[in-house]
Amino acid sequence: MPHKGLDRRLLSSIHHLAGSARVRMELGFSPRQMSLCPTLPVVRLKDRKTLLAVLLNPEMNFGDLYSQGDIDVEGDLVKALEALYHAPNRLITRLISRWLGWIQSCGLSAARKNIHHHYDISTDFYKLWLDPKLVYTCAYFPDENTGLEDAQKAKLDLVCRKLWLQPGETVVEAGCGWGALSLHMAREYGVRVKAFNISHEQIAFAREQAKLEGLESRVEFIEDDYRNIAAHYDAFVSVGMLEHIGREHYEELGNVIRRSIGDTGRGLLHFIGKSQPQPFSVWIRKRIFPGAYTPTLREAMDVLEPHDFSVLDVENLRMHYARTIEFWLQRYERHFEQVVERFGPTFARMWRLYLAGSIAGFRVGTLQLFQIVLAGRACKSQPWTRAQLYNNNATEQDSQDAQWIRATS
Amino acid sequence: MPHKGLDRRLLSSIHHLAGSARVRMELGFSPRQMSLCPTLPVVRLKDRKTLLAVLLNPEMNFGDLYSQGDIDVEGDLVKALEALYHAPNRLITRLISRWLGWIQSCGLSAARKNIHHHYDISTDFYKLWLDPKLVYTCAYFPDENTGLEDAQKAKLDLVCRKLWLQPGETVVEAGCGWGALSLHMAREYGVRVKAFNISHEQIAFAREQAKLEGLESRVEFIEDDYRNIAAHYDAFVSVGMLEHIGREHYEELGNVIRRSIGDTGRGLLHFIGKSQPQPFSVWIRKRIFPGAYTPTLREAMDVLEPHDFSVLDVENLRMHYARTIEFWLQRYERHFEQVVERFGPTFARMWRLYLAGSIAGFRVGTLQLFQIVLAGRACKSQPWTRAQLYNNNATEQDSQDAQWIRATS
Repeated sequence: MPHKGLDRRLLSSIHHLAGSARVRMELGFSPRQMSLCPTLPVVRLKDRKTLLAVLLNPEMNFGDLYSQGDIDVEGDLVKALEALYHAPNRLITRLISRWLGWIQSCGLSAARKNIHHHYDISTDFYKLWLDPKLVYTCAYFPDENTGLEDAQKAKLDLVCRKLWLQPGETVVEAGCGWGALSLHMAREYGVRVKAFNISHEQIAFAREQAKLEGLESRVEFIEDDYRNIAAHYDAFVSVGMLEHIGREHYEELGNVIRRSIGDTGRGLLHFIGKSQPQPFSVWIRKRIFPGAYTPTLREAMDVLEPHDFSVLDVENLRMHYARTIEFWLQRYERHFEQVVERFGPTFARMWRLYLAGSIAGFRVGTLQLFQIVLAGRACKSQPWTRAQLYNNNATEQDSQDAQWIRATS
Repeated sequence: MPHKGLDRRLLSSIHHLAGSARVRMELGFSPRQMSLCPTLPVVRLKDRKTLLAVLLNPEMNFGDLYSQGDIDVEGDLVKALEALYHAPNRLITRLISRWLGWIQSCGLSAARKNIHHHYDISTDFYKLWLDPKLVYTCAYFPDENTGLEDAQKAKLDLVCRKLWLQPGETVVEAGCGWGALSLHMAREYGVRVKAFNISHEQIAFAREQAKLEGLESRVEFIEDDYRNIAAHYDAFVSVGMLEHIGREHYEELGNVIRRSIGDTGRGLLHFIGKSQPQPFSVWIRKRIFPGAYTPTLREAMDVLEPHDFSVLDVENLRMHYARTIEFWLQRYERHFEQVVERFGPTFARMWRLYLAGSIAGFRVGTLQLFQIVLAGRACKSQPWTRAQLYNNNATEQDSQDAQWIRATS
């Protein structure tokens, strides 16, 4: 290996550019030396070509090179990415975090579109590592001992309670995934649901579930764009859609919500956000997904403010999303070889980086998860306090709870 | 009374301008006729001069004429104002609601400054109608049966729990009023507090309370502007100040919070807000108070976003503020004659209108009350869920509760 001095200087430059993050950077995959500092994760670059490619254009190349196997991480991948995030705000960190920003925020949907196109990912792929109901959004862990399946159920309940659903009410869901929330609302809260989704495969799966559960008369799954929601409902809900529609459609989404619930209904928006606005890189906007954007809370208000909706409640669940994806990653790793066999090693490593990078982003706080409860100006259907969210006997609580309508009558 | 036809047409014009709100408008104080529609409140204008003054310049004259006794309301004053708010968005409604917007939002502080100047209101005035601890902000009613005093205590507890205060920590309060929150934090949560306020009289009262309670060594009341907060603290709290500092000072406030808690602490902002931005009228900006502004949630983010603070929680307590002021108004009415004796009838009616108009604004939703919990980017001191806010044995819950720091270690 000639020019060892040069290589060391280049490696040291990368490390310096990465804000001297608490990772080791090493060149070459073999022979594997014992790390001088075994508690730190090691980011290993295959060869000088890889090293130069990262230096040349980290934003373009970091993820691709990892996916191809030219960059590897020894030790905990999530911790290595966290260390890079935690480092002072140096150039490479910003660039890498932009790349990760993409894989985390638009990746799990936009990339799905792209990847779907290339790899024909089927529902079977997600079944490998999601919970059995295929809930592909942040779960809610009431305590440390809750497992993924229960935490997803707890999230569905949390959403229903925040909406204060009452038997016989009507709900519209925009972007329903595989239908778990809509089915849960109908089954557990006695409401009638229309659920919109443009994915043919997801709608087919959801309809099948509704049939199996005998809920077809109460949940209608509609293969259509949320912008075609036209009827009036008591409540509007959208979980994991806002971050994918792009800021230029916020006004449209606001109009849809307004049309759905008027000024008397209420709604819930659940989405990945940020604490500070950050544009996607040129590369991502050009090559990957022109529409996706993870908004700050301020930016998300552009949906609601024009229609005079009241914001009743905002909860930040970012640590719950980190934990959710820890479960996903564990399951994913258990089925890693199956993914490699079916989709090839590059795809398999790319998805590993997705998941690990998302955990790091939510832990460190470059990503946030907001649940916003909103209400029309004249909405009276709200409980006095949020205590009913944390009461195990919600029905009893409901009947005891003072409603706004009583307070103002 | 000549020109009765003209008067009727003018009255009808006012009613029409007011969006045909569900109130009756009548001219003349005597002889009092039986209302044709006794279930509606009657807005009674003394004479044609009053009528013309309202028509000419409602924004300038409505409040003044009510205060002077040239306009009166028979029946429920709050319901009459609510009806005007509820009416379609006609000119007079907008103008009246702007006037009320002033008395509600800046009135209870800006007006204090102005009125202090003119009438020398002392703490004794507020003692007539606030709770014994003189908490001059929105209370929190865990249920319908809670009284004002308990609800104010519950609010102080809610703030402390949202901040997740731990014994031995340090807290700074910006704008501490008569000191109730600072004393509560030190007494009940074992923290050390520095509390800033520019009101000499309030600081003197608060220091006296600290002495009486033996809390002088743990709570320091400082007669100074919040912008002079310089030291580092575990938590920052401000209840009822943001709405009074004006948008042009949000950047400064953000800097103060950042200086106080760095990127590891947390904070709470409690303030009167709106769902849509509304400027004050020229008259108010010129004559009354140039600085005050009740922001939307979007606008309030201008304080936090530049410093990358995470928003962890937003709760809208507007119905709790309506109820709080209902208690204040009841108490105020019981002492109305005392106020008249000491400050004169115009002042007494003006404060009645303040309180009634504020109740109406919070009920109808032209005013909102936001509590925002924020945290620095690297803050680890947050519980997993909000359940601890609703658990009566907080200490036990705290020790059981998973912390973020454990989740990420």
